[in-house]
Amino acid sequence: MKKIDSKRVWQGESWYLQLDSLLLANGQVVEKGAVIHPGSVVLVPIRPFSDGRYEVLMIKQYRHVLDQTILELPAGTREWDEPFLDCAQRELQEEVGYRAEQFDLLGEVWPAPGFTNELMKIYLAQSLHHDPLVGDVDEEIEVVPMPLDELMIMIKDGRIQDAKTIISLQKTARFLRLNH
Amino acid sequence: MKKIDSKRVWQGESWYLQLDSLLLANGQVVEKGAVIHPGSVVLVPIRPFSDGRYEVLMIKQYRHVLDQTILELPAGTREWDEPFLDCAQRELQEEVGYRAEQFDLLGEVWPAPGFTNELMKIYLAQSLHHDPLVGDVDEEIEVVPMPLDELMIMIKDGRIQDAKTIISLQKTARFLRLNH
Repeated sequence: MKKIDSKRVWQGESWYLQLDSLLLANGQVVEKGAVIHPGSVVLVPIRPFSDGRYEVLMIKQYRHVLDQTILELPAGTREWDEPFLDCAQRELQEEVGYRAEQFDLLGEVWPAPGFTNELMKIYLAQSLHHDPLVGDVDEEIEVVPMPLDELMIMIKDGRIQDAKTIISLQKTARFLRLNH
Repeated sequence: MKKIDSKRVWQGESWYLQLDSLLLANGQVVEKGAVIHPGSVVLVPIRPFSDGRYEVLMIKQYRHVLDQTILELPAGTREWDEPFLDCAQRELQEEVGYRAEQFDLLGEVWPAPGFTNELMKIYLAQSLHHDPLVGDVDEEIEVVPMPLDELMIMIKDGRIQDAKTIISLQKTARFLRLNH
């Protein structure tokens, strides 16, 4: 399979839709849509409880494509020329109102490689200090601190359905077991 | 936030791009793109080894948006009026060449709720019988059987980066521990 042509069909605020013409091995040409994306960050902001367990600053956010409010980790789309770590600090301040002194990269995932090249970088954020930034006007967000243990149960029983949140919390639980 | 208008900007073979006009609480109107998607299935086709461990029929597939071949679970997009379970059986036959006698629903996830309403249903597929169907001409797929244990290590060390594959294999490992 070889891309022989490519045109931009629609330009959004952060990503655009591209139509690719692909030449197949059998000589046939097919057209496929692709969401071309600058990448994003997922944040796992945690605070230790006095008993050694952890609390995660989750958010409840209205998602217009689902027409519902879902429980998820804070996250955000990178500006095209923005370093991922700058994006991580900015989104943390905008969505939960804190800066972190320490970021650990837990992994990188593709949420939907069938139609978008979006790459998500997952950061554990620790040593939090209150320092809010004004976020996007089109975001309706409520910050909800929750015990990590409870969130792991909500993943197992299916109450958390957001892919980035499931993967990032599982990587966090593994990281904390190994490093603390 | 309230959706006050919506128009279809581009229609693809399986999903379309919709532009939503959203009225915010402050009276401002913003436009956001949304990939409207019929949903999809993820398959975890497994076979028991004689020692009680499991082998997973993974695939290597060329993904044009990433311009690379990645290791992932078989999966596919539903037709708009197709039952999810029919889609699961069809995709299993098209992508790995087997029918399954038994499907267990392991969970449902949103891969990217920031811009698409796609819902993925994850099925464990057992009791496999060779019964191939011809798949889409634009798919370049190689079937790769791999031990589940090895795949779990590849998730931990970051060699598997596909979100649906990470989540589905973790749900599989948990299901098999509980049910076998």
